[in-house]
Amino acid sequence: MTGRALQTALDYHRAWSSHDVDAAMALVADDVVCDSPGGPVTGIDAFRAFMGPFATSTTRTEILGAFGDDDTAVVLYDTDSTLVRHAPGAEWVRVAGGRITHMTIVFDRLPFAQARAAAG
Amino acid sequence: MTGRALQTALDYHRAWSSHDVDAAMALVADDVVCDSPGGPVTGIDAFRAFMGPFATSTTRTEILGAFGDDDTAVVLYDTDSTLVRHAPGAEWVRVAGGRITHMTIVFDRLPFAQARAAAG
Repeated sequence: MTGRALQTALDYHRAWSSHDVDAAMALVADDVVCDSPGGPVTGIDAFRAFMGPFATSTTRTEILGAFGDDDTAVVLYDTDSTLVRHAPGAEWVRVAGGRITHMTIVFDRLPFAQARAAAG
Repeated sequence: MTGRALQTALDYHRAWSSHDVDAAMALVADDVVCDSPGGPVTGIDAFRAFMGPFATSTTRTEILGAFGDDDTAVVLYDTDSTLVRHAPGAEWVRVAGGRITHMTIVFDRLPFAQARAAAG
């Protein structure tokens, strides 16, 4: 349960889940390529726009499982946010030079779509 | 990257992704507790009803990351199915006695809901 990529993934998780988006983005490569449920998110600016609002809206996060090696890691976690209570997510990441270069992030968009629709 | 729970998780993945639902369910405890996007799924019969139809509808699966130890594991994978192309999923599992006793499964229900709505 050691490994440089796992450590970066955990540091990234800790940063965004404590609402420190700057610290989180410092662990992400400028040319990050993220496969998200809504489609590809490319480059740190787009990635920050994608992840920042969710990160700052979370009220609770809990890591359920985190494993990895020096190159890749997988983290599965639960979240509560101002929009949706109990919204788990999972991330596979590839890390190079201490920064996340590739991510596949999985979560259920349906309750977020429903919450937005209910809010008008 | 060894570990009994990881091995069970990979055997389970291989079974359902090759459409062998019986072999997959043989690796799941009778009193399995699964936290799914749609809510809790409890017991092997409900779990089979939840996972079986999806398993048999897949046309491609690919493991992106799989890690674990003797007790727990996390697997993140991509799938194509007859309903949705490119639908990644992630599972955290707890294993005891060679069978999955607890699972948290994460996937995006939105494209499946949209595909069903489009199909009428």
